[in-house]
Amino acid sequence: MLIGVFDSGIGGLTVLRALRQAWPGHSTIYLGDTARVPYGTKSRATVVRYAHQIADHLLAEGIELLVVACNTASAYALEELQGLPVPVVGVIEPPARAAARATRTGRIGVIGTSATVASGAYERAIAALAPDATVHSIACPLLVPLADEGWEGTDVAREVARRYLEPWLPGRPDRPDVVVLGCTHYPVLRDALAEVLGHEVTLVDSAETTPRAIAPLLEGASTEPEPTHRLILTDGAVGFAATTRRWIGEPAPAVEVVDLEPQGSGQVRR
Amino acid sequence: MLIGVFDSGIGGLTVLRALRQAWPGHSTIYLGDTARVPYGTKSRATVVRYAHQIADHLLAEGIELLVVACNTASAYALEELQGLPVPVVGVIEPPARAAARATRTGRIGVIGTSATVASGAYERAIAALAPDATVHSIACPLLVPLADEGWEGTDVAREVARRYLEPWLPGRPDRPDVVVLGCTHYPVLRDALAEVLGHEVTLVDSAETTPRAIAPLLEGASTEPEPTHRLILTDGAVGFAATTRRWIGEPAPAVEVVDLEPQGSGQVRR
Repeated sequence: MLIGVFDSGIGGLTVLRALRQAWPGHSTIYLGDTARVPYGTKSRATVVRYAHQIADHLLAEGIELLVVACNTASAYALEELQGLPVPVVGVIEPPARAAARATRTGRIGVIGTSATVASGAYERAIAALAPDATVHSIACPLLVPLADEGWEGTDVAREVARRYLEPWLPGRPDRPDVVVLGCTHYPVLRDALAEVLGHEVTLVDSAETTPRAIAPLLEGASTEPEPTHRLILTDGAVGFAATTRRWIGEPAPAVEVVDLEPQGSGQVRR
Repeated sequence: MLIGVFDSGIGGLTVLRALRQAWPGHSTIYLGDTARVPYGTKSRATVVRYAHQIADHLLAEGIELLVVACNTASAYALEELQGLPVPVVGVIEPPARAAARATRTGRIGVIGTSATVASGAYERAIAALAPDATVHSIACPLLVPLADEGWEGTDVAREVARRYLEPWLPGRPDRPDVVVLGCTHYPVLRDALAEVLGHEVTLVDSAETTPRAIAPLLEGASTEPEPTHRLILTDGAVGFAATTRRWIGEPAPAVEVVDLEPQGSGQVRR
C-alpha cells in the first residue's frame, strides 16, 4: 500500500519514521509544506486550504491512505478531509487514547502550537474517551523553532520548557500525571521536557501511538518486497534538507521539491 | 504620497512606525504576509515569487513608493523588483551605510535570519561603502519567534542572544564595534542584544535608518492634511493582530485580511 504522510514542515518525520519501522512492507510518500511552515500560528481557513491542496497533490500521486502528521492540520482540517476517496487518519486521536488509558489522577496535560491548543481538539478527543478526566493545555510556540535549530539538548531548551511548564511543576495543583506532546516536532525535545516535568510524569506522543492506530486499515493489504519511499518538500532551502536527513535516519531518499500554489493568474512574474 | 510597506510578517512594523513618525504627512499601506511567514528559512525562488505577488497587490492599491521592510526579501528580491513602475527601497542599504560610517575598528558584525546571512547581501553592501571593513555575520533564527512570543525581556532572550553572539563577546578576536540588526524584528530585542554585547558596541537597525533614506524620493511630493493608514495581513490569526496593535502603537488601524494566492485552479476545495 502507498501511504501518504504530510506535515506543515519536517516535524511529521517523527511519525513517518515510526510508521516505516512498524510497517516496513509498505511504500510511503511524505510531503512537508516547508514553503508555508509553520501552520501553528495561522488561522483555520488558511490551514484548511493548505491541507486540501496537499491532499489533492498526494491523491494524484496515487496514495491509498493519508496520515495527517501535523497536529494543527489534524485539529483544523481532519473533518473536512473525510470526504476524500481514501481513509484519512490524524495524529490527535491516537495519543488522546493513550493518555486517557494511562492517567491515574485524571489530570492530563496537553502541549502544542497556539493553533492546536486554541482548537480545543485534544480536550474534545479526551472527553469522548475519558469523560471524568480534566485537561489543561499550554501553547508552546517556541518549541518548534528550537527543535528546527537543533538546540534540543541545550540550556535554552530546558529554560524555555521550564517557563512554559511552570504551572505543572511538582507541588502545583494542576500538575498532570500524563502529558500529551501535541505536536509532531516535540518527540525531538522529549528529554528536555521529561527533565523539567520529572520522570514520574508519563509522556505520550503521536509518533509512538499512530502506527498502531492504522493497523486496521492495513489489514488485508499486501506488503511489497521492495517498498519505495519519497520525500517531497514545498521549499528546498538547505536547512530543511539537512534536518530531514538527520531526523529520518539512513537511508534517506533524495528530497524532491514541488510548488503547490496554483499558478496561471497572470499576476505572478518570475 | 501613498507609501507601500511590506514584510514577511509583522517585523516590518518597526520600520512603518519609524516612517510614520518621520514623515507624518504621507499615507501608508502595510502588508504583512503572515500566512507565509517566515521568509528567513525559505529559498530565494520562493521569496522572489512571494515578493512579486505582494508588489502586484500593492501596486493595484495605488502605491507610489515601495519599501521592502523585510531583510530577507530585500536580500533576495530587491534587484528583481527594480523593474516595477514605482521606486523600490530595501532595508539593507540604509543600515549598511550607517555601519560603514560608525565603525572605528573596521570590524562590523551583522545578525539576521538564515536567508539574509546566506545571501551575503550585507557583506556586499558594506564592501561597496567601506572596502577596508571586515564583516562577520551570524544567523540567529530563534530571535524572530522569541520576539513574536513577547519574550524580549526574559532570561531566555538573553541566554539565546548569548549563545548566538558568543564569538563577539569581550576579548574575542572577531569582536566588532558596530553590529547591524539585520532583521526588522530585532529592534524589539535591542535591550537584550545590547546587554549581551556590551553598551560600547554600536547597534544600527533598519527602523532608525530607512526613513532618512527615502527623503530624496519624497522631495516635491505634497503632504496630505489627513493621511490614511491601512494594515493588511494575509492571515488574520489573533496573535498577529494583537502583536500588531502592541508594536504599531495607537491609533492602530483595523486589520484587513487578503488572500494573495492565485485561485481558480479547480484543485482547491473549501
